[in-house]
Amino acid sequence: MRSLLQARPETAGPITALAQTLLYAPNSLSRGDRELIAAYVSALNDCTFCCTSHAAIAACHLEDQSLVDEVLRSPDAAPVTPKLRALLAIAARVQQSGRAVRVEDVERARREGATDTEIHDTVLIAAAFCMFNRYVDGLGAWTPTDAEGYRQRARHVAEHGYAMPLPAAMTRSESDT
Amino acid sequence: MRSLLQARPETAGPITALAQTLLYAPNSLSRGDRELIAAYVSALNDCTFCCTSHAAIAACHLEDQSLVDEVLRSPDAAPVTPKLRALLAIAARVQQSGRAVRVEDVERARREGATDTEIHDTVLIAAAFCMFNRYVDGLGAWTPTDAEGYRQRARHVAEHGYAMPLPAAMTRSESDT
Repeated sequence: MRSLLQARPETAGPITALAQTLLYAPNSLSRGDRELIAAYVSALNDCTFCCTSHAAIAACHLEDQSLVDEVLRSPDAAPVTPKLRALLAIAARVQQSGRAVRVEDVERARREGATDTEIHDTVLIAAAFCMFNRYVDGLGAWTPTDAEGYRQRARHVAEHGYAMPLPAAMTRSESDT
Repeated sequence: MRSLLQARPETAGPITALAQTLLYAPNSLSRGDRELIAAYVSALNDCTFCCTSHAAIAACHLEDQSLVDEVLRSPDAAPVTPKLRALLAIAARVQQSGRAVRVEDVERARREGATDTEIHDTVLIAAAFCMFNRYVDGLGAWTPTDAEGYRQRARHVAEHGYAMPLPAAMTRSESDT
Protein backbone atom coordinates (compact mmCIF):
# COMPACT_ATOMS: atom_id res chain seq x y z
CA MET A 1 0.00 0.00 0.00
CA ARG A 2 2.75 2.46 0.94
CA SER A 3 4.60 1.78 -2.30
CA LEU A 4 1.37 2.48 -4.26
CA LEU A 5 1.00 5.75 -2.41
CA GLN A 6 4.62 6.70 -3.10
CA ALA A 7 4.15 5.91 -6.79
CA ARG A 8 1.30 8.43 -7.17
CA PRO A 9 1.64 11.23 -4.62
CA GLU A 10 -1.29 13.20 -6.16
CA THR A 11 -3.77 10.53 -5.07
CA ALA A 12 -1.87 9.53 -1.91
CA GLY A 13 -2.83 12.75 -0.13
CA PRO A 14 -6.64 12.34 -0.24
CA ILE A 15 -6.39 8.57 0.40
CA THR A 16 -4.22 9.01 3.47
CA ALA A 17 -6.42 11.84 4.74
CA LEU A 18 -9.50 9.65 4.33
CA ALA A 19 -7.93 6.78 6.31
CA GLN A 20 -6.78 9.18 9.02
CA THR A 21 -10.24 10.77 9.32
CA LEU A 22 -12.18 7.52 9.27
CA LEU A 23 -9.91 5.36 11.44
CA TYR A 24 -7.81 7.61 13.66
CA ALA A 25 -9.46 11.02 14.19
CA PRO A 26 -11.58 11.53 17.33
CA ASN A 27 -14.89 9.66 17.06
CA SER A 28 -17.49 8.23 19.39
CA LEU A 29 -16.60 4.84 17.86
CA SER A 30 -13.27 3.75 19.34
CA ARG A 31 -10.22 3.36 17.11
CA GLY A 32 -10.24 -0.34 17.91
CA ASP A 33 -13.86 -0.77 16.81
CA ARG A 34 -13.27 1.19 13.60
CA GLU A 35 -10.23 -0.95 12.78
CA LEU A 36 -12.29 -4.08 13.48
CA ILE A 37 -14.85 -2.93 10.89
CA ALA A 38 -11.99 -2.27 8.42
CA ALA A 39 -10.39 -5.68 9.02
CA TYR A 40 -13.75 -7.47 8.80
CA VAL A 41 -14.68 -5.88 5.44
CA SER A 42 -11.18 -6.64 4.14
CA ALA A 43 -11.66 -10.28 5.14
CA LEU A 44 -14.98 -10.38 3.27
CA ASN A 45 -13.19 -8.92 0.24
CA ASP A 46 -10.49 -11.56 0.63
CA CYS A 47 -7.78 -8.88 0.78
CA THR A 48 -4.97 -10.51 2.75
CA PHE A 49 -2.80 -7.42 3.08
CA CYS A 50 -5.51 -5.04 4.35
CA CYS A 51 -7.12 -7.67 6.58
CA THR A 52 -3.82 -8.65 8.22
CA SER A 53 -2.74 -5.02 8.58
CA HIS A 54 -5.96 -3.69 10.10
CA ALA A 55 -6.50 -6.77 12.29
CA ALA A 56 -3.05 -6.12 13.75
CA ILE A 57 -3.86 -2.42 14.30
CA ALA A 58 -7.22 -3.34 15.89
CA ALA A 59 -5.42 -5.78 18.21
CA CYS A 60 -3.00 -2.99 19.24
CA HIS A 61 -5.82 -0.58 20.08
CA LEU A 62 -8.01 -3.18 21.80
CA GLU A 63 -5.07 -5.02 23.40
CA ASP A 64 -6.90 -8.23 22.58
CA GLN A 65 -5.77 -10.37 19.66
CA SER A 66 -8.22 -13.19 20.36
CA LEU A 67 -11.22 -10.83 20.19
CA VAL A 68 -10.05 -9.68 16.76
CA ASP A 69 -9.66 -13.29 15.63
CA GLU A 70 -13.16 -14.12 16.88
CA VAL A 71 -14.75 -11.15 15.09
CA LEU A 72 -13.09 -12.14 11.83
CA ARG A 73 -14.20 -15.75 12.27
CA SER A 74 -17.77 -15.05 13.31
CA PRO A 75 -18.93 -11.54 14.21
CA ASP A 76 -22.32 -12.86 15.36
CA ALA A 77 -20.69 -15.13 17.95
CA ALA A 78 -17.85 -12.82 19.04
CA PRO A 79 -18.13 -11.16 22.48
CA VAL A 80 -18.69 -7.62 21.21
CA THR A 81 -21.42 -5.19 22.22
CA PRO A 82 -24.80 -5.54 20.48
CA LYS A 83 -24.18 -2.10 18.98
CA LEU A 84 -20.89 -3.13 17.36
CA ARG A 85 -22.47 -6.39 16.19
CA ALA A 86 -25.22 -4.40 14.46
CA LEU A 87 -22.65 -2.08 12.87
CA LEU A 88 -20.60 -5.06 11.63
CA ALA A 89 -23.79 -6.42 10.06
CA ILE A 90 -24.27 -3.11 8.22
CA ALA A 91 -20.63 -3.25 7.08
CA ALA A 92 -21.19 -6.74 5.67
CA ARG A 93 -24.20 -5.46 3.70
CA VAL A 94 -22.19 -2.55 2.31
CA GLN A 95 -19.43 -4.96 1.26
CA GLN A 96 -21.99 -6.77 -0.93
CA SER A 97 -23.53 -3.60 -2.37
CA GLY A 98 -24.81 -0.26 -1.19
CA ARG A 99 -28.24 -1.45 -2.25
CA ALA A 100 -28.01 -4.46 0.07
CA VAL A 101 -28.35 -2.27 3.20
CA ARG A 102 -31.92 -2.63 4.46
CA VAL A 103 -33.95 -0.24 6.55
CA GLU A 104 -34.14 -2.92 9.27
CA ASP A 105 -30.33 -3.12 9.43
CA VAL A 106 -30.19 0.59 10.22
CA GLU A 107 -33.12 0.34 12.65
CA ARG A 108 -31.40 -2.50 14.52
CA ALA A 109 -28.21 -0.43 14.89
CA ARG A 110 -30.20 2.56 16.17
CA ARG A 111 -32.07 0.34 18.62
CA GLU A 112 -28.70 -0.90 19.95
CA GLY A 113 -27.63 2.68 20.58
CA ALA A 114 -25.76 3.67 17.42
CA THR A 115 -26.03 7.34 16.45
CA ASP A 116 -26.66 8.47 12.88
CA THR A 117 -23.04 9.64 12.64
CA GLU A 118 -21.80 6.22 13.80
CA ILE A 119 -23.98 4.52 11.18
CA HIS A 120 -22.74 7.00 8.56
CA ASP A 121 -19.12 6.34 9.51
CA THR A 122 -19.62 2.55 9.50
CA VAL A 123 -21.05 2.72 5.96
CA LEU A 124 -18.20 4.96 4.81
CA ILE A 125 -15.47 2.81 6.45
CA ALA A 126 -16.93 -0.30 4.80
CA ALA A 127 -17.25 1.51 1.45
CA ALA A 128 -13.72 2.91 1.73
CA PHE A 129 -12.30 -0.58 2.30
CA CYS A 130 -14.14 -1.75 -0.82
CA MET A 131 -11.91 0.84 -2.51
CA PHE A 132 -8.65 0.18 -0.60
CA ASN A 133 -8.95 -3.62 -1.02
CA ARG A 134 -9.52 -3.30 -4.79
CA TYR A 135 -6.68 -0.80 -5.10
CA VAL A 136 -4.19 -3.09 -3.36
CA ASP A 137 -5.24 -6.32 -5.05
CA GLY A 138 -6.15 -4.80 -8.43
CA LEU A 139 -2.60 -3.54 -8.84
CA GLY A 140 -1.14 -6.77 -7.50
CA ALA A 141 0.66 -4.98 -4.67
CA TRP A 142 3.19 -7.19 -2.99
CA THR A 143 1.80 -8.70 0.23
CA PRO A 144 4.36 -9.13 3.02
CA THR A 145 4.21 -12.48 4.76
CA ASP A 146 6.12 -11.93 8.01
CA ALA A 147 3.80 -11.56 11.00
CA GLU A 148 6.34 -9.54 12.98
CA GLY A 149 6.48 -6.91 10.21
CA TYR A 150 2.70 -6.45 10.40
CA ARG A 151 2.90 -6.11 14.21
CA GLN A 152 5.65 -3.48 14.00
CA ARG A 153 3.79 -1.41 11.41
CA ALA A 154 0.55 -1.81 13.39
CA ARG A 155 2.18 -0.45 16.56
CA HIS A 156 3.49 2.52 14.58
CA VAL A 157 0.06 3.30 13.09
CA ALA A 158 -1.73 2.73 16.41
CA GLU A 159 0.60 5.25 18.02
CA HIS A 160 1.04 7.85 15.27
CA GLY A 161 -1.92 7.46 12.91
CA TYR A 162 -1.89 7.26 9.12
CA ALA A 163 -0.35 10.61 8.27
CA MET A 164 3.08 9.88 9.80
CA PRO A 165 5.46 8.05 7.42
CA LEU A 166 6.74 4.66 8.55
CA PRO A 167 10.40 4.51 9.60
CA ALA A 168 12.57 3.32 6.69
CA ALA A 169 13.36 0.06 8.49
CA MET A 170 9.69 -0.89 8.36
CA THR A 171 9.28 -0.17 4.65
CA ARG A 172 12.53 -1.35 3.12
CA SER A 173 11.27 -4.76 2.08
CA GLU A 174 8.15 -3.21 0.56
CA SER A 175 9.90 -0.47 -1.39
CA ASP A 176 12.24 -3.09 -2.85
CA THR A 177 9.38 -4.53 -4.87
CA MET B 1 -24.10 12.94 -2.61
CA ARG B 2 -23.74 16.64 -1.86
CA SER B 3 -26.07 16.36 1.12
CA LEU B 4 -23.97 13.44 2.47
CA LEU B 5 -20.86 15.56 2.12
CA GLN B 6 -22.51 18.49 3.89
CA ALA B 7 -23.61 16.21 6.73
CA ARG B 8 -20.03 15.15 7.53
CA PRO B 9 -17.55 17.86 6.50
CA GLU B 10 -14.62 15.96 8.09
CA THR B 11 -14.87 13.21 5.48
CA ALA B 12 -16.12 15.47 2.66
CA GLY B 13 -12.69 17.09 2.25
CA PRO B 14 -10.70 13.96 1.35
CA ILE B 15 -13.58 12.53 -0.72
CA THR B 16 -13.94 15.69 -2.80
CA ALA B 17 -10.16 15.95 -3.20
CA LEU B 18 -10.01 12.35 -4.41
CA ALA B 19 -12.75 12.94 -7.01
CA GLN B 20 -11.06 16.15 -8.16
CA THR B 21 -7.65 14.44 -8.51
CA LEU B 22 -8.95 11.32 -10.24
CA LEU B 23 -11.51 12.87 -12.57
CA TYR B 24 -10.62 16.52 -13.14
CA ALA B 25 -6.91 17.19 -12.54
CA PRO B 26 -4.55 17.14 -15.54
CA ASN B 27 -3.98 13.59 -16.77
CA SER B 28 -2.98 11.87 -20.00
CA LEU B 29 -6.43 10.22 -19.88
CA SER B 30 -8.99 12.83 -20.93
CA ARG B 31 -11.64 14.01 -18.48
CA GLY B 32 -14.26 12.49 -20.74
CA ASP B 33 -12.60 9.06 -20.72
CA ARG B 34 -12.17 9.14 -16.92
CA GLU B 35 -15.84 10.05 -16.46
CA LEU B 36 -16.79 7.21 -18.82
CA ILE B 37 -14.89 4.77 -16.59
CA ALA B 38 -16.68 6.22 -13.53
CA ALA B 39 -20.12 5.99 -15.14
CA TYR B 40 -19.46 2.45 -16.41
CA VAL B 41 -18.39 1.14 -12.97
CA SER B 42 -21.40 2.88 -11.41
CA ALA B 43 -23.66 1.11 -13.92
CA LEU B 44 -22.09 -2.24 -13.01
CA ASN B 45 -22.72 -1.41 -9.34
CA ASP B 46 -26.31 -0.51 -10.22
CA CYS B 47 -25.91 2.95 -8.66
CA THR B 48 -28.45 5.09 -10.49
CA PHE B 49 -27.37 8.42 -9.01
CA CYS B 50 -23.63 8.07 -9.72
CA CYS B 51 -24.16 6.47 -13.13
CA THR B 52 -26.59 9.16 -14.29
CA SER B 53 -24.42 11.96 -12.87
CA HIS B 54 -21.11 10.80 -14.33
CA ALA B 55 -22.65 9.77 -17.66
CA ALA B 56 -23.96 13.34 -17.96
CA ILE B 57 -20.54 14.78 -17.06
CA ALA B 58 -18.83 12.44 -19.58
CA ALA B 59 -21.30 13.56 -22.26
CA CYS B 60 -20.45 17.22 -21.50
CA HIS B 61 -16.71 16.62 -21.83
CA LEU B 62 -16.99 14.39 -24.90
CA GLU B 63 -19.84 16.40 -26.45
CA ASP B 64 -21.34 13.06 -27.47
CA GLN B 65 -24.28 11.62 -25.54
CA SER B 66 -24.75 8.64 -27.86
CA LEU B 67 -21.15 7.47 -27.35
CA VAL B 68 -21.72 7.49 -23.59
CA ASP B 69 -24.94 5.52 -24.02
CA GLU B 70 -23.16 2.97 -26.23
CA VAL B 71 -20.31 2.51 -23.74
CA LEU B 72 -22.78 1.91 -20.93
CA ARG B 73 -24.74 -0.55 -23.05
CA SER B 74 -21.79 -2.49 -24.42
CA PRO B 75 -18.21 -1.22 -24.02
CA ASP B 76 -16.88 -3.98 -26.29
CA ALA B 77 -19.06 -2.80 -29.18
CA ALA B 78 -18.83 0.96 -28.58
CA PRO B 79 -16.66 3.01 -30.98
CA VAL B 80 -13.90 3.83 -28.48
CA THR B 81 -10.15 3.38 -28.94
CA PRO B 82 -8.71 -0.09 -28.28
CA LYS B 83 -6.80 1.48 -25.36
CA LEU B 84 -9.95 2.79 -23.67
CA ARG B 85 -11.70 -0.52 -24.35
CA ALA B 86 -8.87 -2.35 -22.57
CA LEU B 87 -9.04 0.11 -19.64
CA LEU B 88 -12.81 -0.36 -19.36
CA ALA B 89 -12.21 -4.12 -19.21
CA ILE B 90 -9.80 -3.59 -16.29
CA ALA B 91 -12.38 -1.38 -14.58
CA ALA B 92 -15.00 -4.13 -14.92
CA ARG B 93 -12.60 -6.61 -13.28
CA VAL B 94 -11.92 -4.20 -10.41
CA GLN B 95 -15.67 -3.76 -9.91
CA GLN B 96 -15.93 -7.53 -9.29
CA SER B 97 -12.88 -7.70 -7.00
CA GLY B 98 -9.29 -6.52 -6.92
CA ARG B 99 -8.32 -10.17 -7.21
CA ALA B 100 -10.27 -10.52 -10.48
CA VAL B 101 -7.73 -8.38 -12.39
CA ARG B 102 -5.54 -10.75 -14.41
CA VAL B 103 -2.00 -10.23 -15.70
CA GLU B 104 -3.35 -10.55 -19.26
CA ASP B 105 -5.82 -7.69 -18.67
CA VAL B 106 -2.91 -5.41 -17.78
CA GLU B 107 -0.78 -6.73 -20.66
CA ARG B 108 -3.60 -6.06 -23.12
CA ALA B 109 -3.91 -2.45 -21.91
CA ARG B 110 -0.15 -1.96 -22.22
CA ARG B 111 -0.17 -3.45 -25.70
CA GLU B 112 -2.90 -0.96 -26.70
CA GLY B 113 -0.70 1.91 -25.50
CA ALA B 114 -1.78 2.50 -21.88
CA THR B 115 0.97 3.72 -19.56
CA ASP B 116 1.45 2.30 -16.08
CA THR B 117 0.07 5.54 -14.61
CA GLU B 118 -3.04 5.27 -16.81
CA ILE B 119 -3.56 1.66 -15.66
CA HIS B 120 -3.00 2.75 -12.05
CA ASP B 121 -5.52 5.56 -12.39
CA THR B 122 -8.09 3.30 -14.07
CA VAL B 123 -7.83 0.82 -11.19
CA LEU B 124 -8.13 3.61 -8.63
CA ILE B 125 -11.09 5.30 -10.40
CA ALA B 126 -12.90 1.94 -10.55
CA ALA B 127 -12.05 1.19 -6.90
CA ALA B 128 -13.10 4.70 -5.82
CA PHE B 129 -16.49 4.28 -7.47
CA CYS B 130 -16.92 0.99 -5.61
CA MET B 131 -16.68 3.28 -2.56
CA PHE B 132 -18.77 6.22 -3.83
CA ASN B 133 -21.56 3.92 -5.11
CA ARG B 134 -21.78 2.07 -1.77
CA TYR B 135 -21.68 5.34 0.14
CA VAL B 136 -24.60 6.83 -1.80
CA ASP B 137 -26.77 3.70 -1.90
CA GLY B 138 -25.76 2.36 1.54
CA LEU B 139 -27.07 5.51 3.16
CA GLY B 140 -30.13 5.57 0.94
CA ALA B 141 -29.30 9.01 -0.41
CA TRP B 142 -32.17 10.55 -2.28
CA THR B 143 -31.79 10.10 -6.05
CA PRO B 144 -33.08 12.98 -8.16
CA THR B 145 -35.15 11.93 -11.15
CA ASP B 146 -35.22 15.01 -13.39
CA ALA B 147 -32.90 14.68 -16.36
CA GLU B 148 -32.51 18.43 -16.74
CA GLY B 149 -31.16 18.69 -13.16
CA TYR B 150 -28.46 16.13 -13.94
CA ARG B 151 -27.53 18.03 -17.11
CA GLN B 152 -27.27 21.35 -15.26
CA ARG B 153 -25.10 19.89 -12.49
CA ALA B 154 -22.98 18.05 -15.09
CA ARG B 155 -22.28 21.28 -16.98
CA HIS B 156 -21.25 22.94 -13.72
CA VAL B 157 -18.87 20.10 -12.79
CA ALA B 158 -17.49 19.84 -16.34
CA GLU B 159 -16.67 23.56 -16.22
CA HIS B 160 -15.55 24.04 -12.62
CA GLY B 161 -14.52 20.59 -11.31
CA TYR B 162 -15.50 18.96 -8.04
CA ALA B 163 -14.07 21.44 -5.56
CA MET B 164 -16.40 24.31 -6.49
CA PRO B 165 -19.77 24.24 -4.67
CA LEU B 166 -22.89 24.00 -6.82
CA PRO B 167 -25.04 27.13 -7.04
CA ALA B 168 -27.90 27.00 -4.52
CA ALA B 169 -30.48 26.72 -7.29
CA MET B 170 -28.98 23.38 -8.33
CA THR B 171 -28.96 21.89 -4.83
CA ARG B 172 -32.17 23.14 -3.30
CA SER B 173 -34.24 20.08 -4.11
CA GLU B 174 -31.50 17.83 -2.77
CA SER B 175 -30.96 19.70 0.47
CA ASP B 176 -34.69 19.60 1.12
CA THR B 177 -34.51 15.83 1.68
